Amino acid sequence: MTTAHHAPGETRPGGRTARTRQAVLTAVFQELGEGGFAGLTMEKVAQRSGIHVATLYRRWRSIEGLVCELLADLSSGVPLPDSGSLPTDLHTLARSIADFYGEARMSSLIEAVVSAAARDPQAAAVLRSFFSERMALATRMVLRAVDRGELPVDTDPEGVLSALGAPFCYRILIARRPVDRDLAESAATAVWAAACAGAYRRKGEGGLPADESPAVNNKPPGGS
Amino acid sequence: MTTAHHAPGETRPGGRTARTRQAVLTAVFQELGEGGFAGLTMEKVAQRSGIHVATLYRRWRSIEGLVCELLADLSSGVPLPDSGSLPTDLHTLARSIADFYGEARMSSLIEAVVSAAARDPQAAAVLRSFFSERMALATRMVLRAVDRGELPVDTDPEGVLSALGAPFCYRILIARRPVDRDLAESAATAVWAAACAGAYRRKGEGGLPADESPAVNNKPPGGS
Repeated sequence: MTTAHHAPGETRPGGRTARTRQAVLTAVFQELGEGGFAGLTMEKVAQRSGIHVATLYRRWRSIEGLVCELLADLSSGVPLPDSGSLPTDLHTLARSIADFYGEARMSSLIEAVVSAAARDPQAAAVLRSFFSERMALATRMVLRAVDRGELPVDTDPEGVLSALGAPFCYRILIARRPVDRDLAESAATAVWAAACAGAYRRKGEGGLPADESPAVNNKPPGGS
Repeated sequence: MTTAHHAPGETRPGGRTARTRQAVLTAVFQELGEGGFAGLTMEKVAQRSGIHVATLYRRWRSIEGLVCELLADLSSGVPLPDSGSLPTDLHTLARSIADFYGEARMSSLIEAVVSAAARDPQAAAVLRSFFSERMALATRMVLRAVDRGELPVDTDPEGVLSALGAPFCYRILIARRPVDRDLAESAATAVWAAACAGAYRRKGEGGLPADESPAVNNKPPGGS
């Protein structure tokens, strides 16, 4: 994956504002790689980027604002696959996510953003709108699968995609262990099996009531 | 669920130290309910609990230390089911988790703890050890299911339980929307289907290689 390695902001050529933005985001990215979020300050970013600290405060308000913009910038580069098969797409996307967050500074970054959102309502709004945008793009992947007849028509695409992202969130923020390709394989296999079993069907659109759902149908697994 | 409503620390009767602890944790709990984590300070906790702020700093070091202890205290009260059927246990546990985090201040609390861990290595260590302990208890639930023949013998119990907790983590910290019973049903249904499909089998213990896993076996779903 090259996604995690492109210099932040490099896809936006332009005038001085664009160059400032690129210098600042690159500096944040480098600082995160060296000291993580705990050691990150506006002053260090100013020093490394050569941009005056007053400019940083004026444009990004806080270190929280900066890390949110960096996350949005970097993760917009994670490609959304379209292979013609949802299980293949799920595996491809899960591997991209694993590679993205496999780098320690990327885990630090998502941790920093969540932490920022806990302390700062504006950072929370940035995080929420960023994930809604990504989600809106990614749902197409699931809608195509529904059109192909791979999944029930009442499947909730957001449910499927949240379920794919959730194990990475848990691994990084709660278990606090590194993300790897095994997690990606497990997540993609799990989501596909669960989607086929109807775990992400919209409520009240033909799904079984909870008490009769397949989950309480205690059938033994096929394997082992 | 009564879990989320018992006064923090009440199960530890004892002398002045225990009473101080209870007063402080109760105060943190109440402050979180009124102002969330963003507004929480040692001074407010001191004022509400009647415990001197110097005592708070001496014993808990930081607001981060306090929220970690409160989370450990409260969530140790979430019961681990043992119905004789894993799918039923998964649904019961998922509902308990949903009820626990369904309260806004509980979502604030987990957010506070994750945020604390991002900023403070000691809080990170507390979070990691707390979840390992909970995990060690909960794995018994899955091991019993393996003994009963419900799941493949090479199932990784921690994989199953992380997958059950992950959607709540994602909903609270990333999507930033309230947790509800629908999420619990979806999570439990998903984990059971995925576990049966072998998504949580340990690597190198009889699982299929990734390229031949059921996930890339593009079979249409049973339903719809």
